[in-house]
Amino acid sequence: MERLLQSCRIQSQLVRECLAEFLGLYIAVLIGSGAAAQVITSQGTHGSYLTMQLGSALGTVTHDVCFLSGAQLNVVWSMSLWLLGRQPWRKVPLYALSHLLGAFLGAATVYLQYYDAIQVFSGGHLSVAGPNATAGIFCSYPADHLSVWGGIVDQVVATALLLICCLAVEDRRQGLLPDGLAPVLVGALILTIGLSMGSNCGFPLNPARDLGPRLFTFIAGWGEEVFKAGGGWWWVPIVAPFVGGLLGTLIYELLIEVHHQLTPQNQTKTHPKLLTLFSTAKTKHITLN
Amino acid sequence: MERLLQSCRIQSQLVRECLAEFLGLYIAVLIGSGAAAQVITSQGTHGSYLTMQLGSALGTVTHDVCFLSGAQLNVVWSMSLWLLGRQPWRKVPLYALSHLLGAFLGAATVYLQYYDAIQVFSGGHLSVAGPNATAGIFCSYPADHLSVWGGIVDQVVATALLLICCLAVEDRRQGLLPDGLAPVLVGALILTIGLSMGSNCGFPLNPARDLGPRLFTFIAGWGEEVFKAGGGWWWVPIVAPFVGGLLGTLIYELLIEVHHQLTPQNQTKTHPKLLTLFSTAKTKHITLN
Amino acid sequence: MERLLQSCRIQSQLVRECLAEFLGLYIAVLIGSGAAAQVITSQGTHGSYLTMQLGSALGTVTHDVCFLSGAQLNVVWSMSLWLLGRQPWRKVPLYALSHLLGAFLGAATVYLQYYDAIQVFSGGHLSVAGPNATAGIFCSYPADHLSVWGGIVDQVVATALLLICCLAVEDRRQGLLPDGLAPVLVGALILTIGLSMGSNCGFPLNPARDLGPRLFTFIAGWGEEVFKAGGGWWWVPIVAPFVGGLLGTLIYELLIEVHHQLTPQNQTKTHPKLLTLFSTAKTKHITLN
Amino acid sequence: MERLLQSCRIQSQLVRECLAEFLGLYIAVLIGSGAAAQVITSQGTHGSYLTMQLGSALGTVTHDVCFLSGAQLNVVWSMSLWLLGRQPWRKVPLYALSHLLGAFLGAATVYLQYYDAIQVFSGGHLSVAGPNATAGIFCSYPADHLSVWGGIVDQVVATALLLICCLAVEDRRQGLLPDGLAPVLVGALILTIGLSMGSNCGFPLNPARDLGPRLFTFIAGWGEEVFKAGGGWWWVPIVAPFVGGLLGTLIYELLIEVHHQLTPQNQTKTHPKLLTLFSTAKTKHITLN
Repeated sequence: MERLLQSCRIQSQLVRECLAEFLGLYIAVLIGSGAAAQVITSQGTHGSYLTMQLGSALGTVTHDVCFLSGAQLNVVWSMSLWLLGRQPWRKVPLYALSHLLGAFLGAATVYLQYYDAIQVFSGGHLSVAGPNATAGIFCSYPADHLSVWGGIVDQVVATALLLICCLAVEDRRQGLLPDGLAPVLVGALILTIGLSMGSNCGFPLNPARDLGPRLFTFIAGWGEEVFKAGGGWWWVPIVAPFVGGLLGTLIYELLIEVHHQLTPQNQTKTHPKLLTLFSTAKTKHITLN
Repeated sequence: MERLLQSCRIQSQLVRECLAEFLGLYIAVLIGSGAAAQVITSQGTHGSYLTMQLGSALGTVTHDVCFLSGAQLNVVWSMSLWLLGRQPWRKVPLYALSHLLGAFLGAATVYLQYYDAIQVFSGGHLSVAGPNATAGIFCSYPADHLSVWGGIVDQVVATALLLICCLAVEDRRQGLLPDGLAPVLVGALILTIGLSMGSNCGFPLNPARDLGPRLFTFIAGWGEEVFKAGGGWWWVPIVAPFVGGLLGTLIYELLIEVHHQLTPQNQTKTHPKLLTLFSTAKTKHITLN
Repeated sequence: MERLLQSCRIQSQLVRECLAEFLGLYIAVLIGSGAAAQVITSQGTHGSYLTMQLGSALGTVTHDVCFLSGAQLNVVWSMSLWLLGRQPWRKVPLYALSHLLGAFLGAATVYLQYYDAIQVFSGGHLSVAGPNATAGIFCSYPADHLSVWGGIVDQVVATALLLICCLAVEDRRQGLLPDGLAPVLVGALILTIGLSMGSNCGFPLNPARDLGPRLFTFIAGWGEEVFKAGGGWWWVPIVAPFVGGLLGTLIYELLIEVHHQLTPQNQTKTHPKLLTLFSTAKTKHITLN
Repeated sequence: MERLLQSCRIQSQLVRECLAEFLGLYIAVLIGSGAAAQVITSQGTHGSYLTMQLGSALGTVTHDVCFLSGAQLNVVWSMSLWLLGRQPWRKVPLYALSHLLGAFLGAATVYLQYYDAIQVFSGGHLSVAGPNATAGIFCSYPADHLSVWGGIVDQVVATALLLICCLAVEDRRQGLLPDGLAPVLVGALILTIGLSMGSNCGFPLNPARDLGPRLFTFIAGWGEEVFKAGGGWWWVPIVAPFVGGLLGTLIYELLIEVHHQLTPQNQTKTHPKLLTLFSTAKTKHITLN
């Protein structure tokens, strides 16, 4: 037994990181889509919009809270870290693939677990729209009122906010913030976005988390309608989050991080914490100059 | 008085542990089934599905949060710890008995406390199914749509997830995690499972917690229907969690714990916490080899 | 100004403690009854049963969370501490009077703040029962199904649970528990009781908190019906919590505290925290023997 | 790039503080009004009163939780700190202007993000009252039952409570309270006020946060009705919070802070924390005397 276990050990650090990313997205979809399946197939008797959002938030952070792994879990976040020079570009596509695979298998598990419920609720016909639609369990579709431009604006604003706050949490992680709190903060942030920016298109925010389950539903019986619905909506939650992530990273760098290295001396009484934050920021950009 | 108290002291460590397990399940059923009784007998005016789930989660952890006792509270968890060689097998049946007794008496107390409400709601007829069913207050019954195989899959997936996360929390308990946080994490996890895997059969997850109240309802007037309902459903929440627990333990050992002892040296910038976790893991398996 | 402030300073420690108790109950009723007023007068559009319970829990602990004062806030708790020899009996009636006054004035403030809403909702007629009843904003009334004996059982069980957990938190306060967490735990406990034992009669649990607002409604226009309603219900939330408090104190001493002084040596691997708790318990009772 | 960034750095400490205040209110309105927009335009299918209140609370504290900046975020709070001699008066109007601008732009972003939803929900007609009213997304309007005096009382009570608790948190910040917890406590407090004092007029509490979005709706198409509605309601959430803030500051100074410097010696067993709080209080006022 011990020998078997030992032979299973993965030598490469990169592969292990990809495994962590895979597991993170698997759990995120297992819990997040499970919460949606529960509310939709029980027609609201076993949950509400708030429980779905809580499920999404808890699903995203369960992995990090339980395993303290510091996985990135969102390829937009990976891209932002690469843009800031904090990780090599090769990790971005590898992580994206791991996310895609994890989200795909997570959706498959949810379908397995809710197979009976989905069959009964949908009357055996897996549809994308209409009163018995079940595709919304797995990935995002726009509300009826939403135009494509409205959806893009929504996703850009929400992802920018997400990235700005994640960068702030990441900065504080290196000293001021207790380790265990970072995933809790990110979870609270995702709940916040779900509560305030979720009704337009369900705040996907994460290209791989949206595409993986969409591919699964495409294969599992919902058919090509998953790509046609909402006027060919499927590409918006893939492209718009990158735009929002870029915007958020830029805003954080220009409005907040750029002012960090100044004046660790003149700490005033009024904003001691602001300055503490300033003085502990990384000095990499400046020293390179 | 002091002499009386002193004579009541229990000398055996094992008996005291069983007392802690008994009290833990008693409180879990008192609060968890109480929350269900409140929602069901008030027909939803004094709570909702979310409050029931909050009640279940809070009930399970109240004991540990208040008494810091580290009780195991679930015989599947006891079995997993025995399989991993962390406790002798004799404890598993003793703890299971304590759980059964605690859950039975907890159900009796809830029945006593909600006697009037249950009589009025059910019109004096204690039934297991139908609009005035009250048996669901005490133990799990499958939703109408659920097949037996669907229920087994549901319980195996949910218990495996529970065990994986509990093993992760337990591993981190020995160093990285503040003591008081472990029960809070487990409570959040149970809430998460309730939000995402609760509509099929009410996420029992715990054989003794389900069987004890079922026995009580059998005796208290609901009759043999509690074993017949749902096509003889009663054995599923007893057997399936053990299968799920075995699966979860295996997955955790193969996918996560086995990679722990490697490379405490090459800590990279990207996943410092993952590696910290790796390096603090127990080395028992390896050194035995 | 400074001289004025200085002359207002209260010299007596006991008077200052009573002021803290007064403020605590004032805030508890201001927030707790305010949350009920909001839900009832808006007919559920501005809240739900869950928000009322959150309001009750947050109201009870706001004072302690913000001021860290360690006020007792419940005369049953004061009685229990006196029975255990931790404070002189004189404090019990003085604290009870402070609670009564605080709860009375808190109810008056809520009535002032919701005067318009209560007038419109009740059509100008302040009634205790019926569809436009508003007395339930301020103090507890039994549900229609509840018998007097059922109410007594409900209050005894709930107060006993409250006292057992409060004694456990208090014991851990002296060492194991971070200071700021104690009121948070008590608040979570009150929310838990509200979620699982609130539908019978609204979990008063606190004699002065129930009697003070009842006296206010008696004077303010609801009339003697506040004492007649529910078959003369008013004395139950005054008497039953004392019985429950006595029972809870007894259970905690017999089942838990009595086993504390034993065996700080043989700390086993399985329950390290249980034993840590045992070994840090007070040794007063034993050494007196 | 680095040179560009460097040239963007703001030298003045005051300007940076104003930037922090601006960002704080921008995020508060973006999240708080977004949560309201989501619930209102989805007609309650994508949220409830509780999610709106959670959104308001989380919106107010997201800035501080993520950036640890200690921004003041409410001009009433700035005024109170000035009255207590803790900051120069010049900061009050500058901060108020920053708040106004941030709230105005936050409302604009919400309008942009929910443009489609608001158009569909309102049928293209932006109205302040009636079943399709959308002005309530952005700023406060009184409930139908509320008189102007009732609104003033409501705001004075709520703002006084807010200020008393904020002063308590601020006092404890200098020693007893972990840094990261202060914004969490303030967020819980805002949620508490929302749960218990929100149904009369939506607990604005913050003059600039209410006026900024109101000005935006005035310009963006809701017209002068935003100032006429509720019998000229608009000035109440601007004036009443100042009165409440004054009252709260006075109450805190007279009832609580004035008793601080006494008796750090005779720490009794019963209220150790109360006295610890007393003894760590600032001694400025007294020594000046």
